Amino acid sequence: MNVISKPQLMEVTTGPLPASRKIYIAGDRHPELRVPMREISVHETAAEPPLVVYDTSGPYSDPATEIDLEAGLFRLREPWIEDRGDVEKYDGRVVKLEDNGGATGDKLAPEFPCVHSPMRGKAGANVTQLHYARSGMVTPEMEFIAIRENLRREHDPVASKKLIEAAESFGAEIPEYVTPEFVRDEVARGRAIIPANVNHPETEPMIIGRNFLVKINANIGNSAVSSSIAEEVEKMVWATRWGADTVMDLSTGRNIHNIREWIIRNSPVPIGSVPIYQALEKVDRAEDLSWEIYRDTIIEQCEQGVDYFTIHAGVRLKHVHLTADRVTGIVSRGGSVMAKWCLAHHKESFLYENFDKLCDIMARYDVAFSLGDGFRPGSGADANDAAQFAELETLGELNEVAQAKDVQVMIEGPGHIPMHKIKINMEKQLECCNEAPFYTLGPLVTDIAPGYDHITSGIGAAMIGWYGTAMLCYVTPKEHLGLPDRNDVKTGVITYKIAAHAADLAKGHPGAAARDEALSRARFEFRWEDQFNLGLDPETARNFHDQTMPKEAHKVAHFCSMCGPKFCAMEITNQVREYAEKGMAEMSARFEAEGGKLYKESYADETDKIDAAE
Amino acid sequence: MNVISKPQLMEVTTGPLPASRKIYIAGDRHPELRVPMREISVHETAAEPPLVVYDTSGPYSDPATEIDLEAGLFRLREPWIEDRGDVEKYDGRVVKLEDNGGATGDKLAPEFPCVHSPMRGKAGANVTQLHYARSGMVTPEMEFIAIRENLRREHDPVASKKLIEAAESFGAEIPEYVTPEFVRDEVARGRAIIPANVNHPETEPMIIGRNFLVKINANIGNSAVSSSIAEEVEKMVWATRWGADTVMDLSTGRNIHNIREWIIRNSPVPIGSVPIYQALEKVDRAEDLSWEIYRDTIIEQCEQGVDYFTIHAGVRLKHVHLTADRVTGIVSRGGSVMAKWCLAHHKESFLYENFDKLCDIMARYDVAFSLGDGFRPGSGADANDAAQFAELETLGELNEVAQAKDVQVMIEGPGHIPMHKIKINMEKQLECCNEAPFYTLGPLVTDIAPGYDHITSGIGAAMIGWYGTAMLCYVTPKEHLGLPDRNDVKTGVITYKIAAHAADLAKGHPGAAARDEALSRARFEFRWEDQFNLGLDPETARNFHDQTMPKEAHKVAHFCSMCGPKFCAMEITNQVREYAEKGMAEMSARFEAEGGKLYKESYADETDKIDAAE
Repeated sequence: MNVISKPQLMEVTTGPLPASRKIYIAGDRHPELRVPMREISVHETAAEPPLVVYDTSGPYSDPATEIDLEAGLFRLREPWIEDRGDVEKYDGRVVKLEDNGGATGDKLAPEFPCVHSPMRGKAGANVTQLHYARSGMVTPEMEFIAIRENLRREHDPVASKKLIEAAESFGAEIPEYVTPEFVRDEVARGRAIIPANVNHPETEPMIIGRNFLVKINANIGNSAVSSSIAEEVEKMVWATRWGADTVMDLSTGRNIHNIREWIIRNSPVPIGSVPIYQALEKVDRAEDLSWEIYRDTIIEQCEQGVDYFTIHAGVRLKHVHLTADRVTGIVSRGGSVMAKWCLAHHKESFLYENFDKLCDIMARYDVAFSLGDGFRPGSGADANDAAQFAELETLGELNEVAQAKDVQVMIEGPGHIPMHKIKINMEKQLECCNEAPFYTLGPLVTDIAPGYDHITSGIGAAMIGWYGTAMLCYVTPKEHLGLPDRNDVKTGVITYKIAAHAADLAKGHPGAAARDEALSRARFEFRWEDQFNLGLDPETARNFHDQTMPKEAHKVAHFCSMCGPKFCAMEITNQVREYAEKGMAEMSARFEAEGGKLYKESYADETDKIDAAE
Repeated sequence: MNVISKPQLMEVTTGPLPASRKIYIAGDRHPELRVPMREISVHETAAEPPLVVYDTSGPYSDPATEIDLEAGLFRLREPWIEDRGDVEKYDGRVVKLEDNGGATGDKLAPEFPCVHSPMRGKAGANVTQLHYARSGMVTPEMEFIAIRENLRREHDPVASKKLIEAAESFGAEIPEYVTPEFVRDEVARGRAIIPANVNHPETEPMIIGRNFLVKINANIGNSAVSSSIAEEVEKMVWATRWGADTVMDLSTGRNIHNIREWIIRNSPVPIGSVPIYQALEKVDRAEDLSWEIYRDTIIEQCEQGVDYFTIHAGVRLKHVHLTADRVTGIVSRGGSVMAKWCLAHHKESFLYENFDKLCDIMARYDVAFSLGDGFRPGSGADANDAAQFAELETLGELNEVAQAKDVQVMIEGPGHIPMHKIKINMEKQLECCNEAPFYTLGPLVTDIAPGYDHITSGIGAAMIGWYGTAMLCYVTPKEHLGLPDRNDVKTGVITYKIAAHAADLAKGHPGAAARDEALSRARFEFRWEDQFNLGLDPETARNFHDQTMPKEAHKVAHFCSMCGPKFCAMEITNQVREYAEKGMAEMSARFEAEGGKLYKESYADETDKIDAAE
């Protein structure tokens, strides 16, 4: 194997976010756990403890960790996996020319230098978290997740119950406090998954399920048209920095294998892929695909450590014609390839036919299914049609097959749906798929805003997240138009963090409102720095503030640019409070006697101070 | 009066949007009407007529109209107003020094040069559209609106009924086709308003009501901190270019009077204001405000032509203490000023006490009430609390008073509300306010994303629009942080057009889906130019596309940058259609015989063509 030691331009974004510090929480059952969280400190005048938030950014945001992209991240799960005693190391599949789309010489992206032999379940062993859960085992992964989901809040059963009951979760069973046993039970029930390939021990365990915090996925990937290794690794790091819970590598074209290795070895979050994209690169035509080629690609990716596969096994020959009258036909790439294969051969797809074999392979690595919706609507006009729902029913059948084999499953959903048709999607998914986690793309609630589809879809994502979707696949402003760059990735991630968090609030997750309240208090008390730092994107907030009021003195100003210093709603409220506390009548008299100086003159003072500081 | 003829930097954005042409539809009852619409043409291969869309941009987007900002827009409604025979021209109130915040000399913004005497209802006359509607009159304004709302679609009762029935409008009564009589009936019922001050004859009539298309408002306004006349007039033109249905001038500080005059004389959309802002500039302290000062300010603005006033008459002394325990107290500027006034004087507010007199004044000019929600929540934590709902009940009482006096009313709503509490707001408003139109700010569904509050609020806006809100007040990315610039205004407007349109689709407005379908067809058929032009923001869409695929040849490419030329879901769908049409078996055989060349080789050809063009 050629090991090229220095890939060009390999730099990624590191360092903490403003006012933030990484903390690690130890486990109770597993004291060796170091569950990462981010602590955001606030100004001392707040007299509040730091706010603890969920942290997907991995070691990159911890200045105490040395990052070596050529070595990959620390393999935290390796001892847990080995301790279970059910895996074997073996000589993996030999990398083939076609794994990188035939790229050689200059065209070949450098291989990842630090090679590990792959692991898999010993013959007959099932190494999935689902299997362990059903065996009654609480894995370190499960305890890690329980700690992570609680955001270090105190267990306050009364307050939590109140929040849950005041909210509306559409039948979800939000726990007052997440215990490792609750995690195990939800996984065992097939209602949540822990994407955790034994060959991706670098991943910090996370869970996808309707009774946990709503997660988001960011897509990256080079395409036939552009991109490079350095760019893709940085996109992964960048996306997780802003909050991506998983990352899908949707690369097509050349060098898929090598780029993926770099991404996985350096990713603290689960990586998903769509294996048919790579399989297709290995043949000339869709109809040349075969179970053998696909199976080989699956094993290639299982050995590399992909944590979940989008597999369009629900595209059935008998349903293809249902798409013929659509406004936008089939828009899923994988779905269209499988539809074409079925038509060309006039038989059932090799994915559907070999689904049990797929399960057996994935059980040996603990790769989760993300059952793809090949017939998802590509426009509001096609939403909730016969093709889409026929496929969803098929996915329900396949879920049963996988569940029977202890393989983890989530179900993919659309796409483009006007608002009044969103809820039915969620309800039908829960019903068809026995509450397996739903993973949707958006949905976009209108088709008329290319360039703004992070917003058209963020609306639908917040709603379907509230109704019960467990993970939301982001959409960037470039959707339908081009490949997202760094700014687009960030915008997509932040938009989807908003949607996911809005859903958490509306479902009544007991830990969700703490951040809103901390930020609102900061806003109300004119703690500008705190308002920036507690937000999802401190840099942008600060930058926007500075465009209107650039001076440092303005950061402590007791007014904002909207009202200006003369009258300010929030300052008046402080006076209202004083009135309320001291009694209306007394204060009314005192206020009149003082000539209302609290109101106007204190602002005059403030303005003078700022003018003096200029 | 000093007339300064050339205000500095007076330039605004003019000209049509891409592939667009202004058309004017004549009335039936009133043949002199010229109802403006925008026709977007598509590529001839589409074999489709141009798409007609609602057009708020006024004469600025019509190259056939000469724009003279110093003369103001054509006064289209003047003959209609005069023909009704119930108004009188009179010598208006003399402009006072304090109307411009005491600005003189260099500090005084130039006066609008082309002065018109104000009009008002003759003694005893009520000149509101509500009064006319209740008298059974179909005004030219009403017919104008009926034509406008129908978007030039054919009246197809069967298709319309089907769309309405398939959707969910939460009790709205969406008409199959909008007739002038329907407009009249909705106005007479108090369920819709036509903001149309007799002193703003330049406005192109529009309607705000739950059974019509959802409207959006954009806020502009200079503040104590920054801005100028030229900037504000251009912001108004710019906001309407992208779709603002009304514009609120929220100026504070100096020159309020003069800037407003420039804006109104050049505005094709209704202008709203919050008179208390200007009244406050005329006194030293909130508690120095009085009915006399407020009344004088109201008349000043009635004479200038403001079409609706936000009036915080629902802030009552007895409810102020309900805000004391809030996380963010009172955040409405007007609300806080009135609360402070009530406390300082320990009596009921002069707005509440003089509400009947306000009605009498506004009836003589046809200014509509926008009853302000002074106690709207400033954070999710305060949503739907006792203070907010106590005020909403008061607004319901005030609505009854105004309705009894034939004065048009809409009701303002919040603000910050987590998703699960949005619907109750709408329901309570409908119940308390007898279905008077609801006009909400957002609501923001989470507080944790300063810099992205167009998105946090766009989510809530789409939902509350669906539930029944008639007009959505935009929020820009700068909300909570600074004053919006030109780009922020555009982003806010586009975001809210998305929310409003998503609501129209979900409510089943029969004309709404046409644009989505036209754009989806263009997308599916790789008509890139059409996809850009049919969208809300053609410039941004084109720019995003060009960042990945800049060449002109790519605009006709039958693939996009996401899939690249080798495999493309949409192209495969075309083949699926062919199969479906010709019969599965026959096509399967033919396809195999041809070696699947449709699939791969046609792309190769396409790529070659593009390479050659480079």
